[in-house]
Amino acid sequence: MDLMKIAVDAMGGDNAPQTVVEGVERARDEYSDLEFNLYGKESEIKKYLNDQSRIQIIHTDNKIDMNDEPVRAIRRKKDSSMVLAAKAVKDGEADAFFSCGNTGALLAAGLLIVGRIKGISRPGLLSTLPMLSKGEGALNLLDSGANADNKPEHLYEYAILGKYYAQKVRGIANPRIGLLNNGTEEHKGSKTTQEAYQLLKATPNLNFVGNVESNAILKDVADVVVADGFTGNAVLKAIEGTASATMHLLKDSIMNSGVSGKLGALLLKSTFNELKNKMNQSQYGGAVLLGVKAPVVKAHGSSDSAAVYYTLKQIHKMLEEKMIPDLVAYFEEEAKKTDGAEE
Amino acid sequence: MDLMKIAVDAMGGDNAPQTVVEGVERARDEYSDLEFNLYGKESEIKKYLNDQSRIQIIHTDNKIDMNDEPVRAIRRKKDSSMVLAAKAVKDGEADAFFSCGNTGALLAAGLLIVGRIKGISRPGLLSTLPMLSKGEGALNLLDSGANADNKPEHLYEYAILGKYYAQKVRGIANPRIGLLNNGTEEHKGSKTTQEAYQLLKATPNLNFVGNVESNAILKDVADVVVADGFTGNAVLKAIEGTASATMHLLKDSIMNSGVSGKLGALLLKSTFNELKNKMNQSQYGGAVLLGVKAPVVKAHGSSDSAAVYYTLKQIHKMLEEKMIPDLVAYFEEEAKKTDGAEE
Repeated sequence: MDLMKIAVDAMGGDNAPQTVVEGVERARDEYSDLEFNLYGKESEIKKYLNDQSRIQIIHTDNKIDMNDEPVRAIRRKKDSSMVLAAKAVKDGEADAFFSCGNTGALLAAGLLIVGRIKGISRPGLLSTLPMLSKGEGALNLLDSGANADNKPEHLYEYAILGKYYAQKVRGIANPRIGLLNNGTEEHKGSKTTQEAYQLLKATPNLNFVGNVESNAILKDVADVVVADGFTGNAVLKAIEGTASATMHLLKDSIMNSGVSGKLGALLLKSTFNELKNKMNQSQYGGAVLLGVKAPVVKAHGSSDSAAVYYTLKQIHKMLEEKMIPDLVAYFEEEAKKTDGAEE
Repeated sequence: MDLMKIAVDAMGGDNAPQTVVEGVERARDEYSDLEFNLYGKESEIKKYLNDQSRIQIIHTDNKIDMNDEPVRAIRRKKDSSMVLAAKAVKDGEADAFFSCGNTGALLAAGLLIVGRIKGISRPGLLSTLPMLSKGEGALNLLDSGANADNKPEHLYEYAILGKYYAQKVRGIANPRIGLLNNGTEEHKGSKTTQEAYQLLKATPNLNFVGNVESNAILKDVADVVVADGFTGNAVLKAIEGTASATMHLLKDSIMNSGVSGKLGALLLKSTFNELKNKMNQSQYGGAVLLGVKAPVVKAHGSSDSAAVYYTLKQIHKMLEEKMIPDLVAYFEEEAKKTDGAEE
């Protein structure tokens, strides 16, 4: 059995390295084909590590902070835990790169150190959201914020990247791909979405289901929704912010509702927990920078050890299913077609 | 006392003309300085009308349907209730125009019939959202969907339009104006938002509070948030869709939670109602097309008579406070400065 190695920035995140180490140990115990390089302060890491099998610690004192300017931090803090983890992937020492740290720095490390797949112009960030309609299910949204200005051809790339992710990681044979737009009809939208619509419509072997409005994306109308990174980011944050604000508002109202209200809340405790679980994104893993040469994945800064574990599980699936080699092959094939057409 | 006249498309909306007529009567009874022209089927309107004082019915058999193509409908259905109402404003017979009908057609009627204020290049749609943080309060978002492609200078116009609305209608002396963006730092964003930031920062007498992310806009960080119409529309629909989906999910969970859960829900009934009221947008009136020569306001297609009443109250306030004349004067002054600078 070939072992797959994940390079872990052990110092990224609010509760690092504790939750990172705990999540790594859980994933190591579950997947016998995984091994880990942990980059960070050895003494700190060892405090929380119970069993070092298939775990190697690479000591460094430096780390990238949450408020560091991303590109500068990547360029200057060459011995930081995040840069060392990304370099391990670039140098072929590790197969994937994981961090709960500074998102901008992780994106910069992915782009500048791990590097783009040939044929991809603008890697995009893929986020997974739970469906809020009845039943199970989730939705992938990309680009959810790696870029601020996207062109129609980038949205085409996101459709392919998202399709492979949904097939390989979520096991959906023929994922429904939607285009985030301000109306459902074909002619609707900005210049960018109108052009992207035509590109997606013309793509062979793509289950393109047309335009999806942001009030419908949680209603199971598509498995993957593509958007420019500016709008995708705004929609993702609006959904997260509204869900969280609604739950807080409910909680506050209950706290102020007197004895009968509190009794009511007690009786509904399992219902509220069920709702909270359903809305919990971390079960789906982290946000994936798709379009680079290896899985580069970011979990939330406030991740607990379960969220770290779920993200490592997600990375394991990407590696096991050989998602990246397949993507590389697809875009190589595409490039050949374009070259052929140009001759 | 000068009477102010509102031209009402009595046939627009799912429950027209009943809820429209009921809302109009309530507003007429409350505001002695309001009178109304109701455009639509006289026999239908009269079915629901109790007292015709200060209400004139202008009969027409034609109306614009929800699935009519907007611009074509406005051009071809010249005797529809919506077009006649918009024309009454253009011809100086009425001071404002109201409909619960086809949004696209209302926008087209506002732009093509009522017409732009001189100096405004792209009128924008202003929506009002309740704050989901503790306490009272609301937020204006514009452009929430009149345009699909906006330039930085349009966002500057929205800031001025939104400022006047917040001052005149909401009575906020010095409204906080935020720019919807994908990060809070000054340098963040797309090319459009980066340029808009500098324009807003340089505008005198504007309480510009900087960038606002979409997960913060319901948290009382600004009174008005400006955005390009594509992103504004996506964020508005994401917020509305998530709030509604969360409440539905809660309801479904309770329905499936057995006897103790249902008892709990009963005890929390007033809490749930309070939450529902807080999230009810219709108390703030309808969506206003700002930048045209008169108040042009759209209430939701499913509006009940209370929503119609609140929207007429909102229009009354705009008229009473002379918002439009003040906006016209502002942009005339602006044009003079620009002309002066060019000489």
